[in-house]
Amino acid sequence: MPPIVSVRVAQLASELGARILGSGEVTVTAALPFDRAGANCVTFIGDAKHLRKIGECQAAACLVPESAQGQLPAEGPTVWLLVADPLDAFIKTLRRFRPERQRAAIGVSPQAYVSPKAKIGPNTNIYPGAFIDDGAEVGSGCDIHSGVTIGRDCQIGNDCTLHPRVTLYDDVWVGDRVTIHAGAVIGADGFGYRFRNHRFEKIPQMGHVRVEQDCEIGANTTIDRGMIGPTIIGEGSKLDNLVMIGHNCELGKHNVFVSQVGLAGSVTTGDYVRLAGQVGVADHLHLGTGSTVGAKSGVHKNVPEGETQVGYPALPEQEAFKVAMATVKLPEMRKTVRDLVQRVEAIEAATLAESRKAG
Amino acid sequence: MPPIVSVRVAQLASELGARILGSGEVTVTAALPFDRAGANCVTFIGDAKHLRKIGECQAAACLVPESAQGQLPAEGPTVWLLVADPLDAFIKTLRRFRPERQRAAIGVSPQAYVSPKAKIGPNTNIYPGAFIDDGAEVGSGCDIHSGVTIGRDCQIGNDCTLHPRVTLYDDVWVGDRVTIHAGAVIGADGFGYRFRNHRFEKIPQMGHVRVEQDCEIGANTTIDRGMIGPTIIGEGSKLDNLVMIGHNCELGKHNVFVSQVGLAGSVTTGDYVRLAGQVGVADHLHLGTGSTVGAKSGVHKNVPEGETQVGYPALPEQEAFKVAMATVKLPEMRKTVRDLVQRVEAIEAATLAESRKAG
Amino acid sequence: MPPIVSVRVAQLASELGARILGSGEVTVTAALPFDRAGANCVTFIGDAKHLRKIGECQAAACLVPESAQGQLPAEGPTVWLLVADPLDAFIKTLRRFRPERQRAAIGVSPQAYVSPKAKIGPNTNIYPGAFIDDGAEVGSGCDIHSGVTIGRDCQIGNDCTLHPRVTLYDDVWVGDRVTIHAGAVIGADGFGYRFRNHRFEKIPQMGHVRVEQDCEIGANTTIDRGMIGPTIIGEGSKLDNLVMIGHNCELGKHNVFVSQVGLAGSVTTGDYVRLAGQVGVADHLHLGTGSTVGAKSGVHKNVPEGETQVGYPALPEQEAFKVAMATVKLPEMRKTVRDLVQRVEAIEAATLAESRKAG
Repeated sequence: MPPIVSVRVAQLASELGARILGSGEVTVTAALPFDRAGANCVTFIGDAKHLRKIGECQAAACLVPESAQGQLPAEGPTVWLLVADPLDAFIKTLRRFRPERQRAAIGVSPQAYVSPKAKIGPNTNIYPGAFIDDGAEVGSGCDIHSGVTIGRDCQIGNDCTLHPRVTLYDDVWVGDRVTIHAGAVIGADGFGYRFRNHRFEKIPQMGHVRVEQDCEIGANTTIDRGMIGPTIIGEGSKLDNLVMIGHNCELGKHNVFVSQVGLAGSVTTGDYVRLAGQVGVADHLHLGTGSTVGAKSGVHKNVPEGETQVGYPALPEQEAFKVAMATVKLPEMRKTVRDLVQRVEAIEAATLAESRKAG
Repeated sequence: MPPIVSVRVAQLASELGARILGSGEVTVTAALPFDRAGANCVTFIGDAKHLRKIGECQAAACLVPESAQGQLPAEGPTVWLLVADPLDAFIKTLRRFRPERQRAAIGVSPQAYVSPKAKIGPNTNIYPGAFIDDGAEVGSGCDIHSGVTIGRDCQIGNDCTLHPRVTLYDDVWVGDRVTIHAGAVIGADGFGYRFRNHRFEKIPQMGHVRVEQDCEIGANTTIDRGMIGPTIIGEGSKLDNLVMIGHNCELGKHNVFVSQVGLAGSVTTGDYVRLAGQVGVADHLHLGTGSTVGAKSGVHKNVPEGETQVGYPALPEQEAFKVAMATVKLPEMRKTVRDLVQRVEAIEAATLAESRKAG
Repeated sequence: MPPIVSVRVAQLASELGARILGSGEVTVTAALPFDRAGANCVTFIGDAKHLRKIGECQAAACLVPESAQGQLPAEGPTVWLLVADPLDAFIKTLRRFRPERQRAAIGVSPQAYVSPKAKIGPNTNIYPGAFIDDGAEVGSGCDIHSGVTIGRDCQIGNDCTLHPRVTLYDDVWVGDRVTIHAGAVIGADGFGYRFRNHRFEKIPQMGHVRVEQDCEIGANTTIDRGMIGPTIIGEGSKLDNLVMIGHNCELGKHNVFVSQVGLAGSVTTGDYVRLAGQVGVADHLHLGTGSTVGAKSGVHKNVPEGETQVGYPALPEQEAFKVAMATVKLPEMRKTVRDLVQRVEAIEAATLAESRKAG
């Protein structure tokens, strides 16, 4: 356990450039989320919509947006710290109470295997149990953790972190400042077979994978190599845990895919595409720039630029909402229809009787 | 292959405290499930509802519940063993034919890396290729298998098993008698970004993970660290393979999540919550104590205590069942509605003609 | 980067037994997919249905099916190579430009741990960081990559590849020519508990796993061991990444499961069963030989031989299609029904007024 840090609120305010409403003489020893923050804590309210719970604040000090000034309770245990960006200020505060650990400086561990034909940049740590094969190149300032495998002729940029047990197959290209979380597998063979002579015959997967700069790849996520060309994860994209990217997919820049998303082969995306958890996308589709797909949806058609889709099958949001509403009301509608059938039958019978009388 | 064990049924009955119906002089050499058990085997029927297939029994001996006595066929190849708890008795029988392997006693392997600043309890095995970082503490009687990584300042209780390639990031806390299966990743960064300057900026994930006593975590499951505080897996909870637990989630005690379940961030649960396979739960929801969610459901609202929900979107079971029934019958209902439209049009036309005549 | 290879098209044609339409004197230096192939490239069109885009071909040479002869544009930059099987010919061409890497010949690495009670066949590579436990047997011609764990008494056939970080628990049986991709976990405990004394008590999982010859298992896929007997992956079956196979499942031959599929316990399948991505199958079901299930479907009943099912819940394809169509049109139908209700009310009111008048 790290030593306990205590800070006067006035000191904190001065460091954060915050305006104080209340006494700066209180001392705080921890930074915690709103619901957990008690008498010795500093906390925060990130935005206007969370201000409604401000009366319940139990913390000694609370970072709030400047715009909140008129709405702060005059009484209560809390000193208010007005800042432009409460989340940002809170992150700085957290760092103050829990300073980031220093990077280890172990260099190339003698318990790692590094091929004599591999190149390792300066200021890079290769932990025990890592395995770096012939022709691989790792840039400077990288952390290659325990049990990582880097295949033949891979190229890793500068300032990358590969967490424990990451596996890169041969020929994977990774840009600068990429983080890959534990257990992720990049460059395994795509799932391609031909059905011949009553069995599935493997189609060789001779492509590679390209993970561009500033990407973050989640734990146990898998990204398959292209069959002929590359599978591409565009610059700045973030993939959560247990995501599957099929062979030949090409993602644009700044895509965000939540956990357990699955893309079949040869899907392409524009920039700023957002997929919520457990979404599945069929092969060879295109998701346009700025498009969004809701959780658990099944996408089986191209998604136009800027459109939000939801559902299984996925439909444009408004439409999907109407379908979902109508679906939930189906049992009621079924009764209405049965009732109508009876009423129409009654009318028909009456009309028939009438016309017989008349006849 | 282990040597074949043969046992007289009378001997088995005596060990299990079973009452024999038939001859105890038969010898059995294997314990197999009902459908696979032949002439030299002992098998079992776990409960009353499986008794209907009792006439098909081919085994030499069969463990049955005491309550079954009146329903046992008088003829046939099988000796009946009446016990209070047939599954329990069968597990003991299995152990007799296939004795559990002894724990290895390898201590701390010289092919593992254990930081001089880590502490390892007595009677704990650290296998080759494990990596234990500064400040980590492992209790007594643990098996830390090959390729496991235990990050800085982690604390592992007593009698824990970490199967091969388990990765614990820094600051993970694990209670006594916890089993974590191969490839699980505990404590990777939560998936938190802010969108600023046209890119996704990482929000530091400074929390930790707490896995309480008697939990079992499945293979390749991932549990992210909290952003500020902990992600908690409550005492006695069981997570299957490939499950995803997002950051800040707090699970109560004795939860059971089947494989490929995904919880978004900040979900909380009561005790005894059961989620079937591939369920997804949206962020910040609460699943009440004793609630259950059916396979592949998508939960987007709190689930009340004790309630069972199913579907996408998830609804209370009865309601979901009616919606599903009505959905399957939709094409039929569509025809009925079309037919009604025509009939109503016909009536309207007739009425109009009538009123014209009358007019 | 490998050296650039250049080949005359006439030479290529002769090697492939292709008939040339155009000049064989052109030189090509790369083989790329149709959409990416430019002036110095050879590409291919696999089958008749892709011939419609043939006019857009920018490649120097294009492999086409012999049947396409009448449909080839006379003008344009492309020389046509007619072959019986364009994909096959293209794969050979790819190999010519990017020769396969030679297998390493490292034998048993001194940085691996191999139990003195294990047996390793001739011409097998055991990479650094691999761990092979007591009683395990590995055949000849295998590649056991870095960080692989092979448990006690496992048996691996000949010519198998276990990619980095594969974990086999004790007693796993693997046939000849099996490929297992990185991070896959075979033989972890099945998910079986009894609820007793207010907690979930583990049911010991004493079975094993059998992966038959010519199977391929995807990255980070998990296959649990049987409770009593085996979990079986039948000959020639192919499982993609992040697939979950529960305990006691028995797959027939030549099954193909796309990524993120999940089978609950005790599912059995015939031969040639195909499951698309993210399908879930409930426990104890049987999927008949030649059956197919569409992406993201939830299967909760047996699937008959040869049948294709889709949906959540899964239905026979034609039925599912009608339900999906009707579901999408639900909001419209809801309007129709409301409208009908009003019209019928109007008719009823009119009829009532009429009968009063008459009365």
